[in-house]
Amino acid sequence: MANTLCEQLGIDYPIFAFTHCRDVVVEVSKAGGIGVLGAVGFSREQLKEELDWIDAHIGDRPYGVDVVIPQKYEGMDTQSPEALEKQLWDMVPREHIEFAQQLLANAGVPDWPDGSTTMGLMGWTDATATPLLEEALTRPKCRLIANALGTPPADKIKLVKDSGRLIGALCGKVKQALAHKEAGLDFVIAQGGEGGGHTGDVGSIVLWPQIVDAIGDLPMLAAGGIGNGRQIAAAMAMGAAGVWTGSLWLTVEEAHTQPTQKQSLLNATSEDTVRSRSWTGKPCRMLKNEWTEAWGREDSPDPLGMPLQGLVTSDGMRRTATYADAGDCQKVAFNPCGQVIGQINTVESCRQVIYRLLDEYVDAVDKAASLLPKP
Amino acid sequence: MANTLCEQLGIDYPIFAFTHCRDVVVEVSKAGGIGVLGAVGFSREQLKEELDWIDAHIGDRPYGVDVVIPQKYEGMDTQSPEALEKQLWDMVPREHIEFAQQLLANAGVPDWPDGSTTMGLMGWTDATATPLLEEALTRPKCRLIANALGTPPADKIKLVKDSGRLIGALCGKVKQALAHKEAGLDFVIAQGGEGGGHTGDVGSIVLWPQIVDAIGDLPMLAAGGIGNGRQIAAAMAMGAAGVWTGSLWLTVEEAHTQPTQKQSLLNATSEDTVRSRSWTGKPCRMLKNEWTEAWGREDSPDPLGMPLQGLVTSDGMRRTATYADAGDCQKVAFNPCGQVIGQINTVESCRQVIYRLLDEYVDAVDKAASLLPKP
Repeated sequence: MANTLCEQLGIDYPIFAFTHCRDVVVEVSKAGGIGVLGAVGFSREQLKEELDWIDAHIGDRPYGVDVVIPQKYEGMDTQSPEALEKQLWDMVPREHIEFAQQLLANAGVPDWPDGSTTMGLMGWTDATATPLLEEALTRPKCRLIANALGTPPADKIKLVKDSGRLIGALCGKVKQALAHKEAGLDFVIAQGGEGGGHTGDVGSIVLWPQIVDAIGDLPMLAAGGIGNGRQIAAAMAMGAAGVWTGSLWLTVEEAHTQPTQKQSLLNATSEDTVRSRSWTGKPCRMLKNEWTEAWGREDSPDPLGMPLQGLVTSDGMRRTATYADAGDCQKVAFNPCGQVIGQINTVESCRQVIYRLLDEYVDAVDKAASLLPKP
Repeated sequence: MANTLCEQLGIDYPIFAFTHCRDVVVEVSKAGGIGVLGAVGFSREQLKEELDWIDAHIGDRPYGVDVVIPQKYEGMDTQSPEALEKQLWDMVPREHIEFAQQLLANAGVPDWPDGSTTMGLMGWTDATATPLLEEALTRPKCRLIANALGTPPADKIKLVKDSGRLIGALCGKVKQALAHKEAGLDFVIAQGGEGGGHTGDVGSIVLWPQIVDAIGDLPMLAAGGIGNGRQIAAAMAMGAAGVWTGSLWLTVEEAHTQPTQKQSLLNATSEDTVRSRSWTGKPCRMLKNEWTEAWGREDSPDPLGMPLQGLVTSDGMRRTATYADAGDCQKVAFNPCGQVIGQINTVESCRQVIYRLLDEYVDAVDKAASLLPKP
C-alpha cells in the first residue's frame, strides 16, 4: 500500500493510529503504520516524559503528535490566560458544577487527592497548546502534527512546515476541508459521524467522497468507522490516501485502559454510543451511560458551550480516567469511542491488529474486483 | 457484476432502485438494474393501474414491489379495521391535529378537494397491505417483494416464496437481520443511518460489515449513502451482494417530482437532512424545513408514536405531495431523502445514472486494487 504520504513519512502502510498510550504509538509504528500520540491534557513536562519514552523505544520508526491549537478566541490578544480563565469561570452557573459533582459522588468516584475540583482550561487555549507543539517539534522522529479542532493559525502552520514536518487537521464538513486546503495544510482527516470523539453528523460513506472531490489532490485520511480491512478497502476505493483510526486501539494489549473500562468497551455494541455535549460542550461520540443520560434529561441543566462545559467537567474527566475501576465509575465515565466499537470484541496486540487489517484488506479488494464483468 | 441474486432475478447488475415513479421502475430495469415500486399509500385500484402501466412498458425485464406488511398489532385478531381505526383516533389529542393543520395553513398548502382532513391509517395495517401484496403477486414480471417495516408474518413469507418470487426486508440493526434470516427471507436490505426514510442511527460503514458477518451466506443489499459508483465499490468490498438506492432517483428526468420540490432536493447539501419523528412517529430521515423544526421545539407537541402520528399527518402528507409547488409548500413538505442527496446536484436520465454508476465502480475497484503491495 505505497503512496506519497507513506513515502513522505517513511512508513509502510497508510494506517494512522490515534492513541493516548505511548506503547501503542511505538507498536503501531514498529508494525509499519504510524502511531499518533494525543497530547491534549498533558502539561509540557508530562509530554516530554512521554516523548522521551517513545523516542527510546521506537527504533528508527516515525510517529506523530496530535494537539489542539485553537484559532482565535475572545480575549486572546488582550488578556493573560489567568484573566481569561477567571472571566470564563464567572460565566459558569453554580448549578452545573453541583450537578456534575453530584453525579460523580453518586457513582462513588474518588476525589482528586489534593481536594481540588477543577483542572482549569485543560489545553483549549494557545497558552497550553503552544508549549506542547514546541515540545513535539524538538523530536526528529516526530514527523507529523495533527490538529484536532479546526484550521490552525497561520503562524503555527508555518512553524510546523518550516521544520520539515507534515501538518494536518480533522474535519467533518466540506467547508472545513476547504479551509484546511486554503490554509496550506498537507492533508486532512475526514471523520464521519460514526467516529469517536468530536464528530459531525454526516455519515462516512457520504462524507468521504465529497471531501475527496472538494480538495482535489490534497490527501485525505478516512476516519469514522475503520475497524477492519474491509472498511479500509472501502475507504481506499472512495479515494482516501489512508485511514485514521482511534476506537481500534482502545482495547489492545498494549493500551493503558483499566480493566473495567476495557470490559465496557469490549462489551459495547454499535448502538451503545451517543453524540453528547455533556463533557465538552460540543457533540462528542462516547459510550452511553448514566452521565450522558442524566445530562440529557428535560429537568437537568443544559450543557454549556465550549470551553465553559469543559470547566464544569474537567475534574470529572481526570477522576473517571484515573479511577476507572473504582466504585461505579463506568456509569459516569468519559469514554469517547466510535460506533465501530461494536465490532471490537477481543483483545489483540497492535501487531496482530495491523496484520489482520492488511489481510482483510487484500481479501476485500479481491472480492470487489471479482465482481467486475468478465472480459 | 454477476452474482446469484442477479441470476435469480434475471438482471445484469445488482442495482436496486426504490422509487414511487413507475417510469423510473421501467427505465432502471431496462438499463440492467431492477426498479422496485414503493406501494405504500396506494389503494389496490391505484396499484393495479401502476402495475398495468409497468407491465405494458417494461418489455421482458423484471421489477419489484415494496410494501409495508406489519407483524402483529394490538387488536389485529379481534377487531374490524374500522373499529381499530376509531379506537386509534380516540387516542389522538386535538392539539396535535390543530398544530399540524396550522403549519400547513401558514404555508399556504391547498386543502384536499373533498374537504376531508385525514387519509386514515394509510397502509400501516394488514387490511390495507394484504390487497396490495395480492395485486403484486398477480404479475409474472414482478420478481421480488420487499417489506419496509420489520419481518413479515410467516404466512405472507410463504405466500411470496411459494409463488416463486424472492422476499426481503429492511433492517438497521444486527438483531433485525437475524430475525429476517430466521424467518426464511431470501435477502436483507441493511440501511445505515445516512439513508432516507425510516432509518436507524448506526452508520453504513459500521453497519454493513456487521450484518454481513451476522447473516453468513444470506445476501445483503447495502443501503444508506449510495449515490455513486465509488460507494458501490465500497459496499461490494465489504461483502454486499448488491446495493439498494433511493435518493438517487428522486431528481432523475423520469421522476414525477414537481419542479420546486426537485429544486429543493438538488440544492440540498448533506447537512440539510434530519431524522425526525414528526411525520410517522418513527425516526425518518428527510429534508429539514419549518415543519421539522416546528415539531422539534420545546413548546410544541411531542410527536406521537406510530401509527398515531401518521393519523395526525396523513392529510399533510398527501397535500404536500400533490401541491408541492403551491404557496410555500416546500417549507412544510414531507421530503424523505438520505444524506447522499448532497452529492446529487444535476438532473440525469435513469440510463445515464446506471452507466455512470458502473463506470465509477470500475474506476474505484481499479484504484483500490492498485494500492496492493507490488508483488
